[in-house]
Amino acid sequence: MIDTTWFYAPPENFREARVKLPEREAHHVTSVLRGGAGEEIIVVDGEGGCFRVHLEEVRHEHVVGRVLEERRGAGEPTYDLTVAIGILKKRSRFETFLEKAVELGVGRIIPLITDHGEKETIRRDRAQRILTAGLKQTRRSRLPVLEAPQSTDELIDSSAADLRIVCHGDTREARPLARCLPSVVDREIVAAVGPAGGFSGREITTFVDRGWKLADLGARRLRTETAGIVVAASAHAVWSLEELPDG
Amino acid sequence: MIDTTWFYAPPENFREARVKLPEREAHHVTSVLRGGAGEEIIVVDGEGGCFRVHLEEVRHEHVVGRVLEERRGAGEPTYDLTVAIGILKKRSRFETFLEKAVELGVGRIIPLITDHGEKETIRRDRAQRILTAGLKQTRRSRLPVLEAPQSTDELIDSSAADLRIVCHGDTREARPLARCLPSVVDREIVAAVGPAGGFSGREITTFVDRGWKLADLGARRLRTETAGIVVAASAHAVWSLEELPDG
Repeated sequence: MIDTTWFYAPPENFREARVKLPEREAHHVTSVLRGGAGEEIIVVDGEGGCFRVHLEEVRHEHVVGRVLEERRGAGEPTYDLTVAIGILKKRSRFETFLEKAVELGVGRIIPLITDHGEKETIRRDRAQRILTAGLKQTRRSRLPVLEAPQSTDELIDSSAADLRIVCHGDTREARPLARCLPSVVDREIVAAVGPAGGFSGREITTFVDRGWKLADLGARRLRTETAGIVVAASAHAVWSLEELPDG
Repeated sequence: MIDTTWFYAPPENFREARVKLPEREAHHVTSVLRGGAGEEIIVVDGEGGCFRVHLEEVRHEHVVGRVLEERRGAGEPTYDLTVAIGILKKRSRFETFLEKAVELGVGRIIPLITDHGEKETIRRDRAQRILTAGLKQTRRSRLPVLEAPQSTDELIDSSAADLRIVCHGDTREARPLARCLPSVVDREIVAAVGPAGGFSGREITTFVDRGWKLADLGARRLRTETAGIVVAASAHAVWSLEELPDG
């Protein structure tokens, strides 16, 4: 599709081959486009839809366009990666993770309440804005889901993915992360990343008892948000070694 | 080695099996250690040396210790990765890259002056502090070298590494990044990452004419600092697929 700024509108804003942009996005259209009605833009719906749109009405915060073409799954990986990540003391570091998670194809983010971690809450409004901005910037069509915070036990009880990984290199049983990611193509993956203090012994025992693989992220000690980023980047690296060249 | 805070002292501070910490580090010792003389700390020299040190004198900004044990190359990868990266408009994003580059084992960083990029200079003092703090935090022994800014042409003329990669997915010739990184073990690698606007056609042609491989970082558009992080994380992922399990 054409090389232009991307915009976002949730699915309920689409009706009978027309889309009405949310106010914030409409404002963005009027500020970045010189022309107006008659121009073409790309609109993603955050649920995998990517639309080429011909602008019909452009005034102030009211922008309506006609859908010319739809493409499914633009910018989306063929695997479904959830990263559950220990809540961080510094909100800016969590927000760095969110921004990079969108760019790196993460599908779902679960803030984790851990034995050694922070109880601090996430600022959902800010987080959602970061995710939406990232979606357009990086040209994805599916908005990553930011879940409500869960405890480690809740995560373990609710994870049904067949590939479940816990990042914890401090044991002999751990294998290099990339080796824990065989055949990521079309796969559902959940990876848990501990807080600054790491997971507790109790948490690790529970993960292992419930069949999670222990992954070693290497000789260097990584900050929590870096570990989350490495998981997403490694999944993509392994995927691109597996995918057919034209895949 | 013991699980404790790591400290930094440059090689010239080591003499006859004793090390005198720089003032800033000495101050850090007195602020984080409850005891003082008699305790053990880890000191890295930024050139691959990692030392177990028995503290003999601890007062104000004067800290001297005796070296009990030396280990070479702690926390260092077996490959030598240089990332040349387009200078960014937002200094905070460049600094995020520096912090993550240390954690991800990058050996050398070259700020790139590109056709479409910023001319802005780097704040070297701040950058060096970020690198030194990262070294201790992530438990590496070799301080990444931050070069003076170079133009793309200077980079191309000066790069002798046998594996030279330029991140630019906008052409059919580009191959997935991870496939451009075969046998990274013991290898010298240089990767160039463009600025927000990408490399110019002229720059890409020069890279290709001089034998650089075109690497595709995937379907999503990555911010410059994210692309740099992805290069480092992917090198580690490919390395850990190649290394022997006990390597």
